[in-house]
Amino acid sequence: MPAPTDPRTGLPVVAMVGGGQLARMTHQAAIALGQSLRVLATDPAESAALVAADVRLGDHRDLDALRAVADGATVLTFDHEHVPSEHLRTLTVEGVRVAPGPDALLHAQDKLVLRHALDAAGEPQPAWAEVHTVHEATVFAEEVGWPVVVKAPRGGYDGRGVFVVSGPDQVAELLERHRVLLVEERVPLVRELAVLVARSPFGQVAVWPVVETVQRDGINTEVLAPAPDLDEETALAAQELAVRVADRVGVVGVMAVELFGTADGVLVNELAMRPHNSGHWTIEGARTSQFEQHLRAVLDYPLGSTAMTAPAVVTANVLGGAASAEDWAGPGVDERVHHLMAHWPDVKLHWYGKGQRPGRKLGHVTALGEDLAEVRARAVAAARYLADGEVDPAFAFPEEH
Amino acid sequence: MPAPTDPRTGLPVVAMVGGGQLARMTHQAAIALGQSLRVLATDPAESAALVAADVRLGDHRDLDALRAVADGATVLTFDHEHVPSEHLRTLTVEGVRVAPGPDALLHAQDKLVLRHALDAAGEPQPAWAEVHTVHEATVFAEEVGWPVVVKAPRGGYDGRGVFVVSGPDQVAELLERHRVLLVEERVPLVRELAVLVARSPFGQVAVWPVVETVQRDGINTEVLAPAPDLDEETALAAQELAVRVADRVGVVGVMAVELFGTADGVLVNELAMRPHNSGHWTIEGARTSQFEQHLRAVLDYPLGSTAMTAPAVVTANVLGGAASAEDWAGPGVDERVHHLMAHWPDVKLHWYGKGQRPGRKLGHVTALGEDLAEVRARAVAAARYLADGEVDPAFAFPEEH
Repeated sequence: MPAPTDPRTGLPVVAMVGGGQLARMTHQAAIALGQSLRVLATDPAESAALVAADVRLGDHRDLDALRAVADGATVLTFDHEHVPSEHLRTLTVEGVRVAPGPDALLHAQDKLVLRHALDAAGEPQPAWAEVHTVHEATVFAEEVGWPVVVKAPRGGYDGRGVFVVSGPDQVAELLERHRVLLVEERVPLVRELAVLVARSPFGQVAVWPVVETVQRDGINTEVLAPAPDLDEETALAAQELAVRVADRVGVVGVMAVELFGTADGVLVNELAMRPHNSGHWTIEGARTSQFEQHLRAVLDYPLGSTAMTAPAVVTANVLGGAASAEDWAGPGVDERVHHLMAHWPDVKLHWYGKGQRPGRKLGHVTALGEDLAEVRARAVAAARYLADGEVDPAFAFPEEH
Repeated sequence: MPAPTDPRTGLPVVAMVGGGQLARMTHQAAIALGQSLRVLATDPAESAALVAADVRLGDHRDLDALRAVADGATVLTFDHEHVPSEHLRTLTVEGVRVAPGPDALLHAQDKLVLRHALDAAGEPQPAWAEVHTVHEATVFAEEVGWPVVVKAPRGGYDGRGVFVVSGPDQVAELLERHRVLLVEERVPLVRELAVLVARSPFGQVAVWPVVETVQRDGINTEVLAPAPDLDEETALAAQELAVRVADRVGVVGVMAVELFGTADGVLVNELAMRPHNSGHWTIEGARTSQFEQHLRAVLDYPLGSTAMTAPAVVTANVLGGAASAEDWAGPGVDERVHHLMAHWPDVKLHWYGKGQRPGRKLGHVTALGEDLAEVRARAVAAARYLADGEVDPAFAFPEEH
């Protein structure tokens, strides 16, 4: 049976589970390709639901809601990895094209599945153990040395579900909450890197330059493209690693490979199988954005060029400040956007339309240029101003002398 | 009274009259700014109506439809110039912010109004006459020499309503259809140029580099940015002219100044007060696209940088071929998009989602690079392939040897 298309345009219909900013920005990319993204949102005020023409309301854990959004769509894909595998298997059996497929997606849903797969493939990763008892954890920790990093295999993101643990008592506590744990050595981390790769059902693969991701409290705050001072050999090795892993797990769509950069090379931290925060820089900074590429990949279109459009590109996330929207006494978002535009006429804004909440990703800004340090300073100052109205002293407004 | 904003986001709501590709691409730009464009479309299958979340159906000549789409919007703007002035005046009196305002818009709606205004301002334009009788036309034509160019003052676009006339009889025919005519000398045209300018209510102005526009049968087929072999002095003069005209007519938003390039300099042909075909290259080719800039301008946000992102940028329009969709026996649009992507991984596609019809603007492609001739060949070949499946011999697929 040929895949369904939109009878009005003769072009594919991509349905995306999840109505967050990733779906929002994917819709933007879909528009250029003659498409309109169909979105499954849980709330009409979600980021993508505010801007997409075809929004279905429903829960991503509800099989019938998934069936409804997939009905008549060319392919079903994701803005997050929280859809139950069994539902995706059912949909696949029912003839729905799901990309990435449930078997691939499992490597992004379950950290233990990933660790086992990477070991089998001989890919570099931290020393790790699957742990069901305090004793197993202690044996491992005494081998690699306390403290160790304990992770819930499922459900964590943005640093949630990750704990640095100094002794058996804490392991016991965590085992009470989670039947099984992933325990890892604490990697002598120099910095974090990420490689974004796209893979189509045909098997075509495209990889963007390696980036450095800067975290604060486990949440990504800045992405530096390309990763500064990364030797060519390590960069190429990281890209090749990402391509091998993409093939190995059989991902279809965009996949982010998050890496620990150490003095001796890179180790795989985890995977995300969707457009990813570490790839927002590609909207202006690469010939093909991760959002367009994700659509191309899941539709088995030929992939686009991943060449950079400028020597240095930095994305800075705008995180909600300490005050909630109700308590916020500073300038409103519209006023802050005015000032941003006045001060940085060449910084690109991406605002997600979400309510302000401490630590929430509200938007991002991207700056481009020749010199990474200058570009980074510009992006960070702009994002910081947008987040809470504070101005970096290095970028003070002229009238504030 | 403060201008309304979207209570869900705290950000402005721009309402656009017209649901064509300009509204479609403006919605894309609005998404990045945290907004969602509200669109007044006449048909749910219109280009922008397929992708926007907030679509109102109604006729742009119906005052109540205009009132409804403007209700609760921060500002009302346009994807075309066909809205009756009297309606816009009524809305203005009723407190609706209309940008551009009715007085400014008149210069894009009525070619005679523009000619009078440019004469009063002493700006360069072709010799012209307002003609109510055959005698008046003959007097003018004998002064400047037959043939002359006769234009219907209102309603024409894409070359419609423009006639090259060799004698009084044809003038008589046209006068039967139009009460009044604009008659112009036939300019010794070297090429056509365009300058895109944006102006905010505050009076801030931003201008992009001068481009060359290539026409076929009165329809724009290619835009070359920057205009090749244009000396700096003429380029600057054309930009200054555009800024003066923007100020003079008091436009708010993006305005395209279409120019005749002659051996002696430039003459103003006509104005468009909205994002314009001659500015599609700015999506990838300038730091701020015309669509984002239009939103910034009508909202009185500070304007963005108009710097180019590459030395040479070319947009080629995809026009519907001779066959209508029903008669078309070649590859379908989805197949053509596949081939485009396979062959030109770095050419950017913008497909409008419209039905195929001879001469209709179905989409455009943009190529960027160092060398304008190479970039132009790439863009034209890609557009030609998309339009009708024909491949430029210079860009034949490898398997066709």
